[in-house]
Amino acid sequence: LTGPFHPQKLAIAALGNSGSTGADGIEGDIAYFPSFDALKAAPDAAVKGKIVFIDNQMKAAQDGSGYGYFGRGRFVGPNAAAKKGAIAIVIRSIGTDSHRNPHTGVTNFEAGVTPIPSGAISNPDADLLVRQWQHGKPLRLKLLLTPKTLGDQPSGNVIAEVPGSDPKASPVIIACHLDSWDLGTGAIDDAAGCGIITAAAKHIMAAGQPRRTIRILWAGAEEVGVFGGKAYFDAHGKERHAVAMESDFGADRVWRVDFKLPEGAAGLADRIAAALAPYGITRGKQPAGGGADVGALIESGVPTIDLQQDGTRYFDIHHTPDDTFDKVDPAQIRQNVVAWTVTIGLLANSADAELP
Amino acid sequence: LTGPFHPQKLAIAALGNSGSTGADGIEGDIAYFPSFDALKAAPDAAVKGKIVFIDNQMKAAQDGSGYGYFGRGRFVGPNAAAKKGAIAIVIRSIGTDSHRNPHTGVTNFEAGVTPIPSGAISNPDADLLVRQWQHGKPLRLKLLLTPKTLGDQPSGNVIAEVPGSDPKASPVIIACHLDSWDLGTGAIDDAAGCGIITAAAKHIMAAGQPRRTIRILWAGAEEVGVFGGKAYFDAHGKERHAVAMESDFGADRVWRVDFKLPEGAAGLADRIAAALAPYGITRGKQPAGGGADVGALIESGVPTIDLQQDGTRYFDIHHTPDDTFDKVDPAQIRQNVVAWTVTIGLLANSADAELP
Repeated sequence: LTGPFHPQKLAIAALGNSGSTGADGIEGDIAYFPSFDALKAAPDAAVKGKIVFIDNQMKAAQDGSGYGYFGRGRFVGPNAAAKKGAIAIVIRSIGTDSHRNPHTGVTNFEAGVTPIPSGAISNPDADLLVRQWQHGKPLRLKLLLTPKTLGDQPSGNVIAEVPGSDPKASPVIIACHLDSWDLGTGAIDDAAGCGIITAAAKHIMAAGQPRRTIRILWAGAEEVGVFGGKAYFDAHGKERHAVAMESDFGADRVWRVDFKLPEGAAGLADRIAAALAPYGITRGKQPAGGGADVGALIESGVPTIDLQQDGTRYFDIHHTPDDTFDKVDPAQIRQNVVAWTVTIGLLANSADAELP
Repeated sequence: LTGPFHPQKLAIAALGNSGSTGADGIEGDIAYFPSFDALKAAPDAAVKGKIVFIDNQMKAAQDGSGYGYFGRGRFVGPNAAAKKGAIAIVIRSIGTDSHRNPHTGVTNFEAGVTPIPSGAISNPDADLLVRQWQHGKPLRLKLLLTPKTLGDQPSGNVIAEVPGSDPKASPVIIACHLDSWDLGTGAIDDAAGCGIITAAAKHIMAAGQPRRTIRILWAGAEEVGVFGGKAYFDAHGKERHAVAMESDFGADRVWRVDFKLPEGAAGLADRIAAALAPYGITRGKQPAGGGADVGALIESGVPTIDLQQDGTRYFDIHHTPDDTFDKVDPAQIRQNVVAWTVTIGLLANSADAELP
């Protein structure tokens, strides 16, 4: 912030697919919007030639509610601002913490829309900007963001299997993703998820051969557009899959199980819910949604189960420099492994009448 | 960290008075020490030509215990490492949080010791370094720290008074400091303290003229060596002062009051403790220590009182980028203002038989 008050440095991170300001940066007046919807409703004249700022803070929720709604400021806010003639956009981080760490993540521009420089500032910096805005004088921002889009680069999926005893039985597929953002080390998003599903599959293998094969998909390039999950679907989407599940919501405890299974699997769902209850896991009324990397499979009709993790602190850490190993609570990640072991053990030994 | 494993970037801040690595940085093997005492006990040969790392983490304590003991790694660790021939030193931040924000602060080299590059890394980065160290292979670090010591620069004390009705009565002096570290905005250290004492003095003034003058010292240049406090003492140390107090421990609630008063002031101490009790403030057994900016006064015999603040989260924020306004809890800072108003009201109306 260069004006109207004493200059203040802001902690900022470029969003994935952001345009560049060039090495000299750009400076402009801020067009303040309390929400993404306010930006959408604004006339182009209120935006043209300015640096858009989208305020409003996502608050913590156990089920992660808020990421979709407030996240629009990041997902599609830059595209909307560019179409209205903004020279750049800065958003309040899509995050629930109060640290000087911005939250990055991908944003997408429509074909034909030139990407504008797009950054997220930390919540304390957004608070400071808002306090200055409330004085009613024009706010000036100097912005320096020099990301480069290198185009498509090699990535890869890694697939492992616990072989089942019945070669005719369809496999259970469990997924996580290998890539992470540059700011942190990806301990929570999504090394923890890969650890959880892999440990659970290993426990099943040690306990004795299951009927169905358990296929572990460590997906590549999820953050930048679910490219690994899509590549798996392109290669294997027409094969039969009994059920597809994903762990991609940190390392905190599983608190709820949601199902989206065929009608014939009501008994199987009851057995799983009963087996999870001793670990403090309740049964939800929601249909399960699955995860990004198995999204295409689920859309094509493959059943899914969500072992919903407590997301209260997930968006404190998500896509920030704070995504480090110390955030993984050993007791809670062990509870995840137990829940997954119980669940995929029952799934991998289920009957053909229960799962496709 | 450049070796022996995959390179990892560390979040680091130079300490005040650190030497520079030059623009090209330096690279070296790490000499690991679990504590400052372990470094002190080590033979020079274990240190010479290496980059010293001092581990062990300060843990949160309500009364701030740990800053003095663990803080030695910062206060005098670099000097000790330099004397043993280290080419640089990196310490685990003197802080209690788990965020990727390093804690800076001043370090001091003895006359004749050439300052070596001295930095603090965040706790998650220190954890990562320790995990790599535990593999038993030599750790390599590339260090880039380019601080400059500009020599003495102008600073200033600001002094205000609530004039007392009795010109012969000695004044009550209350202090805070105006300067802060570059990483954050200094909301907790020490804008909050300045706000607390100033608001309290204003409340006294509004309530009616006190007998003694209340002198407010907003000290300059505390962080770099208490230069403002020393300058005040040089100019005014020989004048009579009834009592000297300081607020420099954030904005969280006052939980204990400690006294260091003349024998004749036992009744005054009782009146103050009784007046504070309704606000949940207990009476301590410790003699009060005062604060840095009034330290020289207290050493010369001026009485003092500590309104001890809850320090449980103070060293999460201290000297980091996270020292921002959102960390100030309105309810707790109001309790501070009440406690100070009560205390300095009684002090400013005390008798000559009670205070010098």
